[in-house]
Amino acid sequence: RSGEMAKLTQLIDNEVFRAYATYATIVLLKMMLMSLITAYFRITRKAFVNPEDTASLGKGESAKKYLRTDPDVERVRRGHLNDLENIVPFLGIGLLYALSGPELSTALLHFRIFVGARIIHTFAYLIPLPQPSRGLSWAVAYTVTISMAYKVLKTALYL
Amino acid sequence: RSGEMAKLTQLIDNEVFRAYATYATIVLLKMMLMSLITAYFRITRKAFVNPEDTASLGKGESAKKYLRTDPDVERVRRGHLNDLENIVPFLGIGLLYALSGPELSTALLHFRIFVGARIIHTFAYLIPLPQPSRGLSWAVAYTVTISMAYKVLKTALYL
Amino acid sequence: RSGEMAKLTQLIDNEVFRAYATYATIVLLKMMLMSLITAYFRITRKAFVNPEDTASLGKGESAKKYLRTDPDVERVRRGHLNDLENIVPFLGIGLLYALSGPELSTALLHFRIFVGARIIHTFAYLIPLPQPSRGLSWAVAYTVTISMAYKVLKTALYL
Repeated sequence: RSGEMAKLTQLIDNEVFRAYATYATIVLLKMMLMSLITAYFRITRKAFVNPEDTASLGKGESAKKYLRTDPDVERVRRGHLNDLENIVPFLGIGLLYALSGPELSTALLHFRIFVGARIIHTFAYLIPLPQPSRGLSWAVAYTVTISMAYKVLKTALYL
Repeated sequence: RSGEMAKLTQLIDNEVFRAYATYATIVLLKMMLMSLITAYFRITRKAFVNPEDTASLGKGESAKKYLRTDPDVERVRRGHLNDLENIVPFLGIGLLYALSGPELSTALLHFRIFVGARIIHTFAYLIPLPQPSRGLSWAVAYTVTISMAYKVLKTALYL
Repeated sequence: RSGEMAKLTQLIDNEVFRAYATYATIVLLKMMLMSLITAYFRITRKAFVNPEDTASLGKGESAKKYLRTDPDVERVRRGHLNDLENIVPFLGIGLLYALSGPELSTALLHFRIFVGARIIHTFAYLIPLPQPSRGLSWAVAYTVTISMAYKVLKTALYL
């Protein structure tokens, strides 16, 4: 069994794979943070969607008024969904890219720009910054993912 | 080719990786079940969102009344989205965690608690159970994912 | 380091894994296309959700009228969310399936049918085609994922 373990840890010892592991984990933690920010705004704005969540705020009609949408809550939720739409392709394509044998420096460039752009995207969405801040940061991360997909298909294409 | 295959199957022969494969598959099947539950409530509550879905229920104005939202349908959809927001990080971080060489017993503990908590979360959302059932089960699965992310970053950090 | 690299590239040299890499990348690129289609409809229909996105269309009250929902935009968004709900399980279960040692021809059959069905699903949703086109293409891709999950659990089950 230690022989198998050795082979497995060789994967995590590879520098490109370690870089992928690091940046994928960071950007997933960033995405998970959106849940906490949503909860923070729901509680401070008193804006809930499930009746059972307002039970502690009062009984009957007095609690019902907290079942409402709030612009700040909805904004965080849109940012969270945009994360899902863009980070899921990065996770899948990035893993395959890391296994397709890219140069370490090229791989680091892709991972760093993607994660940096998604962090800027979050600030641009939540503050919010004037456009085209959000649009540009979205486009940069999108383009990085396309570039990795091109490398994967060039290396692995098997239809 | 059989040599390559042997190396690949070594991955799936590793016990930690097999445990990850098992629990990731179970929690993804659970998430996929949400689609069937949504469809069940859409059909039994006659609450649709696409005009083409109501064509079999009548013509013209008589079908339009089924283009509406229903509280039960919306509840299942929120549970489904919450699954996506939490199971996607588990898939990515959990895979990297399984490759980072954890103790088998520690890994099993993480996977079992995560999947158990997400199953409880689904029941808490759909029944619904009074709070803090749903909040607690969400927090337990969230914390397990953070714990795995910590192990990945400790083992693989390469910025 | 070249020794490690060799082992990593062996993964991407395996034909089943290359097929997974190809079809996973294609279906993720298809999903990413939904973002561009959403942006296209938002701009041509002038239907936005964030106030900062309408700043270039006019000042004050005159820009506010573009903060509205549009049926075509909402339709693309539903298609995008349906992609997320179904492609995320394919990514996770498909990767584990590719590592579980299936026959190449069987694996290709699974990957091709899944990706074909999801492409048909997108056309059925966006045109839209009359039902049961969308429902059937959804069910085919769903069934393929269940079939792969069965193989994973049969090969790797470790509870």
